[in-house]
Amino acid sequence: MSELPRYQDLPAAPRGGRSAWGLFGPDDDLGLVNLMTPERVAAAARLVRTGRMFPLDLPIGSIAPALARSRGAPRHAVLHQPGSVGFDDVYDNFYPQASSQWDSLGHIGYAPDEFYNGATEADVLSGARNTIEHWAQHGIAGRAILLDIPGAMAAAGRQYEPGEATAIGVDELELARRRTGLDFATGDVILLHTGFAAWYGQQPGAVRDRLPSRLNAPGLAHSEAVAEYLWDWHAAAIASDTFAVEVWPIDPDPAAHPFGFLHHMLIGQFGMALGELWWLHDLADSCATDGVYESFLVSVPLNAPGGIGSPANAVAIK
Amino acid sequence: MSELPRYQDLPAAPRGGRSAWGLFGPDDDLGLVNLMTPERVAAAARLVRTGRMFPLDLPIGSIAPALARSRGAPRHAVLHQPGSVGFDDVYDNFYPQASSQWDSLGHIGYAPDEFYNGATEADVLSGARNTIEHWAQHGIAGRAILLDIPGAMAAAGRQYEPGEATAIGVDELELARRRTGLDFATGDVILLHTGFAAWYGQQPGAVRDRLPSRLNAPGLAHSEAVAEYLWDWHAAAIASDTFAVEVWPIDPDPAAHPFGFLHHMLIGQFGMALGELWWLHDLADSCATDGVYESFLVSVPLNAPGGIGSPANAVAIK
Amino acid sequence: MSELPRYQDLPAAPRGGRSAWGLFGPDDDLGLVNLMTPERVAAAARLVRTGRMFPLDLPIGSIAPALARSRGAPRHAVLHQPGSVGFDDVYDNFYPQASSQWDSLGHIGYAPDEFYNGATEADVLSGARNTIEHWAQHGIAGRAILLDIPGAMAAAGRQYEPGEATAIGVDELELARRRTGLDFATGDVILLHTGFAAWYGQQPGAVRDRLPSRLNAPGLAHSEAVAEYLWDWHAAAIASDTFAVEVWPIDPDPAAHPFGFLHHMLIGQFGMALGELWWLHDLADSCATDGVYESFLVSVPLNAPGGIGSPANAVAIK
Amino acid sequence: MSELPRYQDLPAAPRGGRSAWGLFGPDDDLGLVNLMTPERVAAAARLVRTGRMFPLDLPIGSIAPALARSRGAPRHAVLHQPGSVGFDDVYDNFYPQASSQWDSLGHIGYAPDEFYNGATEADVLSGARNTIEHWAQHGIAGRAILLDIPGAMAAAGRQYEPGEATAIGVDELELARRRTGLDFATGDVILLHTGFAAWYGQQPGAVRDRLPSRLNAPGLAHSEAVAEYLWDWHAAAIASDTFAVEVWPIDPDPAAHPFGFLHHMLIGQFGMALGELWWLHDLADSCATDGVYESFLVSVPLNAPGGIGSPANAVAIK
Repeated sequence: MSELPRYQDLPAAPRGGRSAWGLFGPDDDLGLVNLMTPERVAAAARLVRTGRMFPLDLPIGSIAPALARSRGAPRHAVLHQPGSVGFDDVYDNFYPQASSQWDSLGHIGYAPDEFYNGATEADVLSGARNTIEHWAQHGIAGRAILLDIPGAMAAAGRQYEPGEATAIGVDELELARRRTGLDFATGDVILLHTGFAAWYGQQPGAVRDRLPSRLNAPGLAHSEAVAEYLWDWHAAAIASDTFAVEVWPIDPDPAAHPFGFLHHMLIGQFGMALGELWWLHDLADSCATDGVYESFLVSVPLNAPGGIGSPANAVAIK
Repeated sequence: MSELPRYQDLPAAPRGGRSAWGLFGPDDDLGLVNLMTPERVAAAARLVRTGRMFPLDLPIGSIAPALARSRGAPRHAVLHQPGSVGFDDVYDNFYPQASSQWDSLGHIGYAPDEFYNGATEADVLSGARNTIEHWAQHGIAGRAILLDIPGAMAAAGRQYEPGEATAIGVDELELARRRTGLDFATGDVILLHTGFAAWYGQQPGAVRDRLPSRLNAPGLAHSEAVAEYLWDWHAAAIASDTFAVEVWPIDPDPAAHPFGFLHHMLIGQFGMALGELWWLHDLADSCATDGVYESFLVSVPLNAPGGIGSPANAVAIK
Repeated sequence: MSELPRYQDLPAAPRGGRSAWGLFGPDDDLGLVNLMTPERVAAAARLVRTGRMFPLDLPIGSIAPALARSRGAPRHAVLHQPGSVGFDDVYDNFYPQASSQWDSLGHIGYAPDEFYNGATEADVLSGARNTIEHWAQHGIAGRAILLDIPGAMAAAGRQYEPGEATAIGVDELELARRRTGLDFATGDVILLHTGFAAWYGQQPGAVRDRLPSRLNAPGLAHSEAVAEYLWDWHAAAIASDTFAVEVWPIDPDPAAHPFGFLHHMLIGQFGMALGELWWLHDLADSCATDGVYESFLVSVPLNAPGGIGSPANAVAIK
Repeated sequence: MSELPRYQDLPAAPRGGRSAWGLFGPDDDLGLVNLMTPERVAAAARLVRTGRMFPLDLPIGSIAPALARSRGAPRHAVLHQPGSVGFDDVYDNFYPQASSQWDSLGHIGYAPDEFYNGATEADVLSGARNTIEHWAQHGIAGRAILLDIPGAMAAAGRQYEPGEATAIGVDELELARRRTGLDFATGDVILLHTGFAAWYGQQPGAVRDRLPSRLNAPGLAHSEAVAEYLWDWHAAAIASDTFAVEVWPIDPDPAAHPFGFLHHMLIGQFGMALGELWWLHDLADSCATDGVYESFLVSVPLNAPGGIGSPANAVAIK
């Protein structure tokens, strides 16, 4: 892959923002995961120094009730004949996006019937395009760089509340990036640590029960500047420990489209991989301790034909 | 982890074979995955040269009907309001062991009520011990070494049929290992390529439909010599593209216990991670081409509390 | 069954209201379905004159989204090999109480750990007591008497809105009963027609989507007078076309217990069978036309061991 | 409904046997359930004398493993917050035809793409025609007449084994019918008691486990004479306590079509309602005791749009 254009050089998209459709060919279903080339994977593997592994998935079923009201909790049956030597198990009501997850490029479009790279509603529904198995069959690996928002805010003496709808703009992203001492690199996986998942884990049941109907969660600001920043980074993916990578609730005003719900741009136009509700707390602690904010990230989503999302199945190795 | 004893130095197990219980402490739930220390992970990561990724999971639902008759095919519903910009999905009847998978240490015991490291039937049923989340929370990574049985047999001028119940003994394992030019190393993941999964993929529906009721599949011979060989390798895991790692059908004769069904020993006594129905074909092709039989293997099983098995979610990186 | 006592002659229940526990013996799991004796069933069958059947179940899945937020929509898969002559099907996420339904006597207790006739939480959870199969194995049949609230209110020149939280008190019940020209009889099934289900069927998707989080539905008033009226009728069951038989929302004030949520009394103390979300519209039309408000009702709940609820599977025959 | 033609007067069907398509109009989805007219329902209700109810459904999940290998056991989750006063439940993997059941007219066709009354494969798959809700919305009720095969065989001094593949021909049907002292009547529900379900209930687990792969069960003989007999009876339905109403295994020889698998004729051409695995033991006992072999049968299948089958939800009232 040759150099990607800058955001300002992308063509205008018909309903606002700019379009990256076609940059990887008209039939592309991978999006910016294309940037995870063997050379970059090999370079990222060389970041492994101590071999310490940081699994980044919350337990299946640990977000309960599911934050998106259209989802539910998995039902797990352990199958066993009493007295026998074997066990088996089966899941029902397993929403692959209810806990730590990837959104496939079919999850959210730029607009109705306009999904990443021109795929239609029917293309996604039938599993013909943009679904999760494309990433599973390509492989996801690369350099991860952790942006520690709570840490950066604290260091800057700024107030920050991980259980509120705090918008993280370009300033805050840069504040956190500069603390890493690292520069942008094409194909990176940005790990956006907001503190939301750890905050969630400390809430009592009564609070959790109320969250799905009135969720506030920190995340990327609903602005074109943020979209431009992420594109110009030429990152392949951004994964966060918050609900939707971007701040929640979204801005449903049509005048705010496509930035009021950044998924429209990030997934629908850029083809960027979005990871949500990852467990970044332990990794962030480690980064704060040793000052090393980069790691080798490997994720193996389910090889699920026609799948809209997948558990993250991600590990960072330092 | 200090040096493990040799098989002959392990204490006798009460119902045949030898016992590795207690080697990692009385409360251990990880088994030989304990051997995947940071040092070994770091060393294995240095095997990455080209950065080429080999995802090792067959598609979810691709083994249909399920080879174990107690399992079934996943039902996948794509959720979408026509005209809307979003898609979601949900799985029912999702047997995590129906396609490429890991057996947790709770899957099969040494004997009824005698699971790895002394866990009871009730311990496994309640998710108190040996279930899959322990590996997920530790992380699985290490050097993989591919043993290409069809390749080794062909090179040796020996007949080999991947769709039959061919027993692979120590001789055949060594034949394949010597072709790799590599020596045993503690914590390795042995990838046992039998050709079964590729054979399966070529069978018509009528043949597949008959397989669950009379399955023949190649795999490890039902012998103490094979158990000893694997233990003395001090491998952490063995994953194969065949149904059960070991040859199928098992030998149900009580006199053959615990070797007639090697799971009793490998899982129940050794605490070895067994991977089944992995897709090793492309990796084996690559190894045959470039002569490099080792790679960096990373697997991220589902972080599923109380889970008996998991999709493999594995990738080898060369 | 000999004559039941009147409400005022029942012993006081410890947390308010009066108790019918023990009237059918200490081990009874049927409650007032005991009143459906052969003699009464035979008498009710003689009410069949024209043979016209009125099925009383809404379609499975037609209440969408489910009005109780803890429930969901069934997922139905039709199984078929293209070109073959056979079809089969399977349901997942099938909540037996999401559409027209019976609450078993295990559904709601008088108080925590105090379920009908002294059953404990553990008794219900294990399926040892009060679950739905007891009714299925006894059989449910008897005289149904339709109380047409919208009709009675209109005839009385009173305002009535089936989509609001209108409380139906003893006055309104008597108003409707007197229009039937029929007297109370032991073992009756009261069909309480509120018009809610028909109202629901006319709402657009956007309205339906909002209902689960702020439901208003007509039903029995939260008063002891209503409880006394139903008990003294000595009816076996009351089924309605509204969400919960009683007006919704409930009154959660502890001072209102057990009448603020009448289920506590009707199910937990009386052992009365409660049917919800039945389709009574066509039957009510027929009654208004021919002036015959009684019919022979037969319901066959699922014979589901340990089941908490069941589709109503009910038909009225006139 | 005017008089139906006799079998010999039906037109020949293109692949053998005779065709009843079109008798109830080109768009009919009910088949012989059309014969359940109000007049006949009213007459059947008058058969109720004592009011004794005989529920005819086996427990959900009691046929385990499912006799048809393509089906499975339901998974039932009881939902409860410890300490709360309420319970709810949900089923997954619920095959409506795994226990006592009705086959809808979409279950089996006369031939591929030739379902009852000319419906196509696509019609059934989409739920446009022949599915179970048509019966649910019409209602199923009528006179039941029990044919007690074991009783009739014993009385005739003939050997009979309910666990074997005993074919029941016209002679045996007539032997049983004559014992009832009753004549054929249009719209009847024939209850064919074979003793299979009671036999099944007495088998140990090891025997049950083997049944799905080599099932032998008694039932109607694979002959045109049986088809003619049932048609000329002008019965609306035939329900049995055996696996498939007809003897099992079927005769797959193409030369035997359509009688080698009578479903092709009974469902695909006649539009007859077939009930399977009903519990007729207690009713048969009662008939043998009091000599009354007729009863009022009411069944309320699930009102399940697009459903292929349903639990029987049936009760006989004498």
